[in-house]
Amino acid sequence: MRDVYLVGAAQSDFGAFPRESYRSLFGEAFVGAVESIDGEFDKSTIDEAFVGTLGVGGRQLGLGGPAVTEYVGLDGVPCTRVENACAASGSALRQAVTAIRAETADVALAGGYEVMTDMSGEQTRYWLGVSGETEWERMAGTTFAGVYSQMADAHMDKYGTTREQLSRVAVKNHANGAKNPHAHLGFECSLEDAMNGKTVAEPLNLYDCCPTSDGASAAIVASESVARELTDNPIRITGTGQASGRVGLFQRPSLTEIPATGAAAEQAFDDADVTVDDIDFAEVHDCFSIAELLAYEDLGFCETGQAGEYIESGATLPDGERPVNLSGGLKSKGHPIGATGVGQVTEVFKQLRGEAGDRQVDGLSCGLTHNVGGSGGAVAVHVFEEGWE
Amino acid sequence: MRDVYLVGAAQSDFGAFPRESYRSLFGEAFVGAVESIDGEFDKSTIDEAFVGTLGVGGRQLGLGGPAVTEYVGLDGVPCTRVENACAASGSALRQAVTAIRAETADVALAGGYEVMTDMSGEQTRYWLGVSGETEWERMAGTTFAGVYSQMADAHMDKYGTTREQLSRVAVKNHANGAKNPHAHLGFECSLEDAMNGKTVAEPLNLYDCCPTSDGASAAIVASESVARELTDNPIRITGTGQASGRVGLFQRPSLTEIPATGAAAEQAFDDADVTVDDIDFAEVHDCFSIAELLAYEDLGFCETGQAGEYIESGATLPDGERPVNLSGGLKSKGHPIGATGVGQVTEVFKQLRGEAGDRQVDGLSCGLTHNVGGSGGAVAVHVFEEGWE
Repeated sequence: MRDVYLVGAAQSDFGAFPRESYRSLFGEAFVGAVESIDGEFDKSTIDEAFVGTLGVGGRQLGLGGPAVTEYVGLDGVPCTRVENACAASGSALRQAVTAIRAETADVALAGGYEVMTDMSGEQTRYWLGVSGETEWERMAGTTFAGVYSQMADAHMDKYGTTREQLSRVAVKNHANGAKNPHAHLGFECSLEDAMNGKTVAEPLNLYDCCPTSDGASAAIVASESVARELTDNPIRITGTGQASGRVGLFQRPSLTEIPATGAAAEQAFDDADVTVDDIDFAEVHDCFSIAELLAYEDLGFCETGQAGEYIESGATLPDGERPVNLSGGLKSKGHPIGATGVGQVTEVFKQLRGEAGDRQVDGLSCGLTHNVGGSGGAVAVHVFEEGWE
Repeated sequence: MRDVYLVGAAQSDFGAFPRESYRSLFGEAFVGAVESIDGEFDKSTIDEAFVGTLGVGGRQLGLGGPAVTEYVGLDGVPCTRVENACAASGSALRQAVTAIRAETADVALAGGYEVMTDMSGEQTRYWLGVSGETEWERMAGTTFAGVYSQMADAHMDKYGTTREQLSRVAVKNHANGAKNPHAHLGFECSLEDAMNGKTVAEPLNLYDCCPTSDGASAAIVASESVARELTDNPIRITGTGQASGRVGLFQRPSLTEIPATGAAAEQAFDDADVTVDDIDFAEVHDCFSIAELLAYEDLGFCETGQAGEYIESGATLPDGERPVNLSGGLKSKGHPIGATGVGQVTEVFKQLRGEAGDRQVDGLSCGLTHNVGGSGGAVAVHVFEEGWE
């Protein structure tokens, strides 16, 4: 089985760009990914492409993959649209890694996009509704904020997690995102602000929730022989893990964990032959503040029930033992659904190469991405390490 | 690179089942696929799943993969929804093959589903519209029948293809489908009927167009070591090819060919180390009669411009040199979008194993499937051969 290298990655700005098309945003990310490659790269060497998008707005559903690869000059290249709701491009990356390992491709593109802000609130709710559990949760009027608020409430009740601990996720991620020029909400927020936001779904307030964003992302992966031609500063993708879970939260045995995260992480760690102790930093799926706390526990960063204390300890701050969401996360950087997974990959690429500008943390050599679809119906986890095998 | 075996395949009935759910139809196909396996099969050995669906009706878009795999008891198994419009499950099969080759999986599931007949004509047109070129063709009021009618008209004009030659596709495929208990339109039609159907989009009439169907399909693929435990009558998937093309017909240089078919076939033939002369029979994407004629040419079954004469010669009849669409094809068997690609695989599986009942053709040892997304924005081609490597 061949080693797989991440040779380039980039994202467009994430934000509210209602005048942009999904094609132009994807083009921006693709050009950025090509430009991020150290050596001379010929895009005609791309053998296969995987593009994640929910297709919000229905602009281009079925052929939403080829519709953007043709725009960036990859006409003819096999392209598959990959879907798993908010885990779409995490799943796309997995397919690109698999294509290199299978020798179907020597160079593969994984990316994603979403345009969400040119619609009314009702329209956005429809598209977010059909990306979760449709027939029971959506029909019952539940939104993602509603589903995650049940998890937050249960976690507070069972483990004593506090309002302040939830808000510390927002404070940390906004502080990180304020240093990210691509962030949608690139401003800091105080603990007082974060604790007193307008209620969205009790106990979650506005500062517990990620924004609705537009944006795109792209990553280029390659076999070792190709990577050796392109860079002296290599990043390996050593682990890929994916799992599914019951799509509806109401079908799962517990409100305080996402089993697919644990299963995907175990797979990815086994694949990479690492343990959680090897993970120096991570980009986790903080669509809501509680989601980041659940990720700490389900990924094994801390014991079950201890996530509140873990964030309070400062462990996941930039100067902590294991920085989390140095990019700003979904909370501050933004969450253009199909673009999010490979957006996380972009941050890991930059940090491992020392190219993260003001938010660079030195001494990192092993990173993780964690991308969740729905409320845990699908999860993709990847492990990245610097250096040649 | 490991060899890949097709150990099981089945489809639900294709038809108009407006009272069925996508889950129940997928369950029927999955159970059929498991029951089609010669040996004792434990579904918990399935390592990964890929499910194609356009998600017509928006019942379950983002997590439309895990939503059906959980229903068949595969909770936890990594599942990715794969999309390429009408080529969704052809693309899903490619991912399953790739997963086996990459050693990510020893056993993988590929399948698809669609429920389309419980909606109004307007609703169906919306969902079919967003599976083609959305921003120009759909906005201009074009339908798939409209797009393919331009191809038919151009082919008739350029090569002298006749009304009768188009209708012979329908006559052949209905005769085949009449022997298929799973067919949606399982009745024969006369050449006179086929030539005099009600006009849909000149020159295409009702008998030139496939129906709008509900249904599901599932295939189980495995590594050689697993396959040797399960069967003494093995089918190898020796070639996988996929290509993209401009999503809009208006963007392509010619109305009389689908370049992605040629490119995908070339890849699949190279991968399998066969030539077109080795292909004994095929299931091709006959969404419209003209589409089957274009496939003959683009796959290399006959010379460019000769497809009309090729069908007239009887070459693709059950007793011809290369039977095409023994299942009845999309025309008679039906076209539940996401289910179609793996539905084709089911027929190849049955024919190669001698299990096709009244429509069995003896002496076949190498088959091909050809699955088109949109009017040629994506094409997946696979080659199947009997016996161990």
